[in-house]
This record gives sequence, C-alpha cells and structure tokens, in this order.
Amino acid sequence: MSPIRVGIIGLGNVGGGALRLLHGNASQIERKLGCPLEVSAVCSRHVHTAPSEAVALHPAAFRTSDWREVVSHPDVDVVAELVGGTGVAREILEAALGLGKPVVTANKELLAEHGAELWGQARSRRASLGMEASVAGGIPVLTALREGIAGDGIDALIGILNGTSNYILTEIERTGAAFDDVLREAQELGYAEADPSADIDGFDARSKLAILAGLAFGVQASPAQIPVEGIRRIRTIDFAYAGRLGHTIRLLATARRGGDGLRLAVRPALIEKNTILAGVTGSYNALWVHGQGGDTFYYGKGAGPDPTGVAVVSDLIAAARSVRTSGVQPVPPFAHMELRSYSPVDTGTEERQFYLRFRVQDRPGILASLAAILAKQGVSIEAVLQEPYTDKGDLPFVTTLEPTRRKSLEAALKAMRGLDFLVDEPLAMPLEPTLTAP
Amino acid sequence: MSPIRVGIIGLGNVGGGALRLLHGNASQIERKLGCPLEVSAVCSRHVHTAPSEAVALHPAAFRTSDWREVVSHPDVDVVAELVGGTGVAREILEAALGLGKPVVTANKELLAEHGAELWGQARSRRASLGMEASVAGGIPVLTALREGIAGDGIDALIGILNGTSNYILTEIERTGAAFDDVLREAQELGYAEADPSADIDGFDARSKLAILAGLAFGVQASPAQIPVEGIRRIRTIDFAYAGRLGHTIRLLATARRGGDGLRLAVRPALIEKNTILAGVTGSYNALWVHGQGGDTFYYGKGAGPDPTGVAVVSDLIAAARSVRTSGVQPVPPFAHMELRSYSPVDTGTEERQFYLRFRVQDRPGILASLAAILAKQGVSIEAVLQEPYTDKGDLPFVTTLEPTRRKSLEAALKAMRGLDFLVDEPLAMPLEPTLTAP
Repeated sequence: MSPIRVGIIGLGNVGGGALRLLHGNASQIERKLGCPLEVSAVCSRHVHTAPSEAVALHPAAFRTSDWREVVSHPDVDVVAELVGGTGVAREILEAALGLGKPVVTANKELLAEHGAELWGQARSRRASLGMEASVAGGIPVLTALREGIAGDGIDALIGILNGTSNYILTEIERTGAAFDDVLREAQELGYAEADPSADIDGFDARSKLAILAGLAFGVQASPAQIPVEGIRRIRTIDFAYAGRLGHTIRLLATARRGGDGLRLAVRPALIEKNTILAGVTGSYNALWVHGQGGDTFYYGKGAGPDPTGVAVVSDLIAAARSVRTSGVQPVPPFAHMELRSYSPVDTGTEERQFYLRFRVQDRPGILASLAAILAKQGVSIEAVLQEPYTDKGDLPFVTTLEPTRRKSLEAALKAMRGLDFLVDEPLAMPLEPTLTAP
Repeated sequence: MSPIRVGIIGLGNVGGGALRLLHGNASQIERKLGCPLEVSAVCSRHVHTAPSEAVALHPAAFRTSDWREVVSHPDVDVVAELVGGTGVAREILEAALGLGKPVVTANKELLAEHGAELWGQARSRRASLGMEASVAGGIPVLTALREGIAGDGIDALIGILNGTSNYILTEIERTGAAFDDVLREAQELGYAEADPSADIDGFDARSKLAILAGLAFGVQASPAQIPVEGIRRIRTIDFAYAGRLGHTIRLLATARRGGDGLRLAVRPALIEKNTILAGVTGSYNALWVHGQGGDTFYYGKGAGPDPTGVAVVSDLIAAARSVRTSGVQPVPPFAHMELRSYSPVDTGTEERQFYLRFRVQDRPGILASLAAILAKQGVSIEAVLQEPYTDKGDLPFVTTLEPTRRKSLEAALKAMRGLDFLVDEPLAMPLEPTLTAP
C-alpha cells in the first residue's frame, strides 16, 4: 500500500527522538501499519541553518521554517505539533484540523486549557487527535485509560507526574542534601529548567491531572480549578520525620470520586514506605488507578527524547490508520465523546490525617498554645515528634493530627499567623492512602 | 445513535463480571461510544434452568443454550466467546468471523495455538478480534504493546503472568510453609484448581508469553516451542538461601531479543529483592517491558471476574466502534499485520549466573566431587552456602555459579545423575537480571 506521510513541526528533543525512531523502526512500523510511514516534511526555525542529525535521517523530507507550509503541504497526511506553548501550537493544530488532517501533539498546557475545544474541532472534521505524549511521556497511560480499561468505572487516580519534582524529593531523601542544593544540581544535570517553577510549584503536574480527569471521569477541568501546592517548602528534616512515621514524601496528583463529586488536587503528601508508589524514585513517573477491576499501576520514564518520542510515534501510527478511515468518527482522545464541565468539590471537606511541621524559637508553653488553637477548630493532635536539634532559635518539630477536614486545619493555621515564636509558617501535608503492596 | 448489540457466550466468572459491568457502567460506556452498548443475547448450558443474577440484569436479552443461535442472531453485532478451551470456542469464533461479526475472547490457550489463523480470518472478513482479557486479566498490557508503545522497538519482556504460582511462591516466602501445604490452602481459597498443573507447571504462563511475543516481536511462537519449567520443586529452604543472596524467587516468563534471535522461556528464577518485580506478591500479575523508550512496567490483578470483566468490556467497546467502520481493515490484534514464524533460539547458549541447590546424604568429599563434575564442563563455583540443618540424611546446600551457559550446566547435571549421595536431582535456577528500582 502507498505510504502515509507525516509532517513534523518542532525539532527539539521530542521531535528529534521521534525522527530517530521513525527511521530506526521503519520496517517494524510498516509491519504494524501495513504500509510505510514516511516523514515528508519537517519544520523548525533553524532547519535550514542548522539541521540536526535526526533531520538528516530523512533526506527526502521537505524542509521549511514556516509551519504553514507543512500543514498545507499536499504530501502531508498527518501533522505532528511539537513546538509547545499555547500560541503558535494552537494555530498549527487548528489549521491542520481545519484541513481535516489528523494531528498528534505532546502539548500538555494546550490540551489542559483547550483540549475539549480541539477535540470538538477534530470531531467535526472527523480527524483524529493524538496526545499520548502529553502525560507521563513514555508510559501509555492515556491509551490504557481510553482503551485498555475503557470498560472500568474509575474511583481514584494517584499520579507521580512530574519527574523533576520526584527527582528532587528522592535525592533529598537519598542524600540528605538541602532543597536548594539538589535543585541546583538538577539544573546542572538538565533535569530542571533555569526557571523551575512549572515543575516544582506543581503547575506541570496540574495540567497533566486536568487531562487525566478528562479521560478517567469525562470532565473538562481547567487547571485553574485544581488546587496546587509545590515542593519548595519541603526540607531535609521532613524526610527524617516522615521516615519515623514509616512514610516518605512525594508530589502527588490525585483524583478521587466521592458521593459529592470529584476532588482533584496536586500536593506534596506523605505516603507509606512499603507501597509501590513509594518505590517510584528519580525522574520516573507513575500512575495508580483504582476502579472496579481492582488496582492497576503504570510506571516508566516521564520525559526524555526517546520515551516521549515513542509516545509520539505510537500516536502517529494510530493517526496513520485513521487516514485510511477518514470520514469515520475517530476514537475520542479524552475517552468520552463529550466532556462535561467540572464542578470543583471543596477539597477542604475531605478527612485526612495530617503531618504538621513547625519551626519555632524554643521556649516553654509553645505546644500548649498550638494545641489550644488546633483544639478550638476541633483538631486533635495524635503524636508529637521531635528529633535532636541544636538551634534553639529555629527548632523544628512535628505533630501528626487525628483525621480532620483540611478546612478545620486551615482555620487553625490562619489563627497561628503572627504567633511570635513561629520562625516560619507551619507546613501541613496529608497522609495520603495509596496502593499498598499486597 | 442506535445501540450496538452484544451476544455473550459463556456465563461463568468472566461472563458474569462482564454482564455486571455492562449493566453498571452503561451510561458511562454510552458516553464513550456515542451510543448504547446493549446485551442482546446470552448463552450458557444452564441459562434456562439456573440463570445467574448477572443474567437477570439484562432481562431483554435473548437466552439460549445453543451458541449458534447467538452467533447467527440478527440482533447480535458483536460476539464474546467466554467458554474457554480450544474446541467449541474455536468453532464459535470462526462462525462469528465467517459472518463478518467482530469477536472478543479471553481464551489464551486458543489464541496461543491458533491466534494467527484467527486473525487471518478476521482480517479477510474485515472484522476485529479483541483479546485483552487473555493475558494478565485486568492489566491492559496488550493494548499498551499494540497501541500505547507501538512506536517502540522492544528488546525484552519479563512477566509474572500466573497469579496462582505467584501466590504460592510469595506465601511460601511470607510464611515459611511447605509447598504442598500452601498449594492445598490455595486450592481451598479457590486460587488454585483441583488439577493445578496448568498453573504451577508453567503452561498457563507459557500460552500468555506466546501471545505477548506476537505483539511485541511480531512472531508466531507456538507454546511447544517455548521451554517451560514449573515451581513444584521449589522448597521453603530455597527462599532462605535466595534471601541470603539478596534475592527472591518468582516464576518468570521472559522474552529477550539478542543478536542471534529471540529467546523465550518460562522458568522460576532468582531476582533481586530491591526490584519492582520482587514487589509483585500474592495473586497479582505484572509485565516489565524494556525498549528504546526505556523501561515501562504494568501491574494489576491477573484474574477474577471484575478485572477480567473490565478487559472484556473494554474490548467490546472497541469492537462496537469497529462495527461502525465495517469494511475497514481492523487494528491487528497481534500488533502486526502478519506474524512471522518463530525460530526458537537455544536458551542453553545464554550466559547466566545460576543458583544450584543440592540435597545430599552428608559425608566427606561431596563438594569436591560435585565441583569436579562442574569444572569438567568449564563451570566455576562462585560461592557455597549452607544453612544450619539437622538431618544429615537429607542435607540441603547451595552453590552459586559464575556466569555460565545453561547447556554447560545441563551437561554437568546429567553427569551428576546416579551419584549415590544425591537425595534428589539438583535444582538449578538462573539469577535473572530485572528492572532495578532507579
């Protein structure tokens, strides 16, 4: 059969990885697809002045620095948008879908904000929209949710979706180094950006959670509707205290369906050490899914040219198949034909045990006054932990709380503001129930 | 849109689970599919005399004890074969495909033996063949290999694919009980069959590995081409010795692609304790995949009405979509349009460290004579381990071997036959490299 022809816009890490895989695995891909999958056009700003080695693997491809020439090219059947961001990327996808061409994208920000609209456009033009690379890089979690366990009714998701944060947290745990030092090291190693905010403040994980909520629950949650807390305030000492409690700390993206609706949140949390999730270290990603079919768990590399490239190429194979069925309604990328709007449920009403770490100027009566403030909100202290520490002017200690609603705790934290013995705002993290190794 | 109608043949555990999910998740499935998915016919021997509660959830479904009436029924668009075995099941699938109706099956034995032929038939009739439930129950490993990481080039698979064996091994490890006692307990709990051979002798895992080899490597390996060894000879003491080596024991289904071809095997093996695979305990299943995109890992329930029911219903959703695109080439169930015949590679040529456990009547010179036999085959002993033991007439001890080819070891084992101080044939297990938690 005649080849299906792909145009790739954006030739950075992910685009380069995809080009290498399309070259190296060409014969295997042909055996899967029943025809060759060819790269017929490539586009980047520097494709003329500084074509990469990956581009050189596809000498017959038309080269341009104008994305419009790729989208409209008659020899391009499928368009891959790998430029990122929410500006030009959106124009590219809309232009391609407008021509009825299937698209593939790795763009989590764009999909989290405008995914439902893009699917609406794709659907009306009967063109497919591939997005496996947008969440958890090389782990096929979207395909699993959309197709593999499509028949399941999902109650809960817990994801470790940001490799940079997970690297930083697990390096602090492993080495006992300080947050700032580990962050600097991660930046030097290329694991963290010069501006690390998107990763360590939880925004990247939040976009991914918004996408997952679409597939798992059929809702269109915009990132702004999802409470987010990053990992900047976590200190080495927190791992020592968490360890004494048999726990460790991870940045978790959680979705839990309850009687009153769907709770979404991205927050650092304590999880038990003897769990599969706690075994996810370094820059790996993972997703735990709980449904009627029991627990399933997915693990792998969340980023990098090859893992993300695999996701892009896998989507290109599916998109190429859809070229053969043009005119037929494509499989909905968010698993549901239409997404419902999301009504956020107050995460403050969920009961959890909490870890509450204070830094104080040591003097008598501190615990009594903190306990009194907590008691006034109906919050009971379960235990008090204090590691040996020498600096009486900045003494950390931890209390664990009996199960309480976050809003009660937050009211107590508000009442603590301005207490003169507090060196810093208290750090509260939930003890999050997760998949226990059976 | 008008409903797509399903006929279900075989109403045991898996069929019942599927019927419950199709009822309970009906509105969600409709949101995914764009139309209702209805059960229009059910078939089992006892459907008239003793219809189950699950059948009663679908009162409008036509009930029969003759599968032919389901397959040929004009109100049946998709046929699910859940009777098992390789006789009638094959007739059912061939009859349905002959009418151009998409089919869904959970039948690993049939797919392992005749999957390529069934796909040939499906392909010629342009009908889809769904089989997610045939391997690793509720874990969507086939969808992941076929679509999620379709663009990857896979080097190696390691699977824990038989829940019964894994339950028995990890119970021996956890409790120190004897193999026979744990097997009896598993039978009482319903985890093991009255005739446990398919599970504990590795045949079940071997069928699943044959199917996985099709998807991952595009080969049609028949089970008989795959060396298999079960877990009957493993004793409590083996876990003690493995533990001293920092290892545990699992029944592994492995596929490794090397320069000389693809090696497939099902065998108990020692794996390091600090690995994700070693964390798979009880009746859970798991699959580790190593490809160009790095490692991915999939974990969940391998059996049971709900997990396997989820797989069946997910396949039914995909099959229902394919009804809309009838006339279009379906996605190939084994990931490749055509499978190549498999040329087995001698697993004896692979180099491994080995664990070698002897049971002897203790007397001087034993180690020297065993070492001499090993040395004659060029096999070097790395270490000797001996736990305190009181029965001098049946004394177990273990040697670990330097990396050696299995065939050299097997030649040595052959030469040891008939040695009068051996109480039992020595037990050899490889130390299998696996995914180490990063």
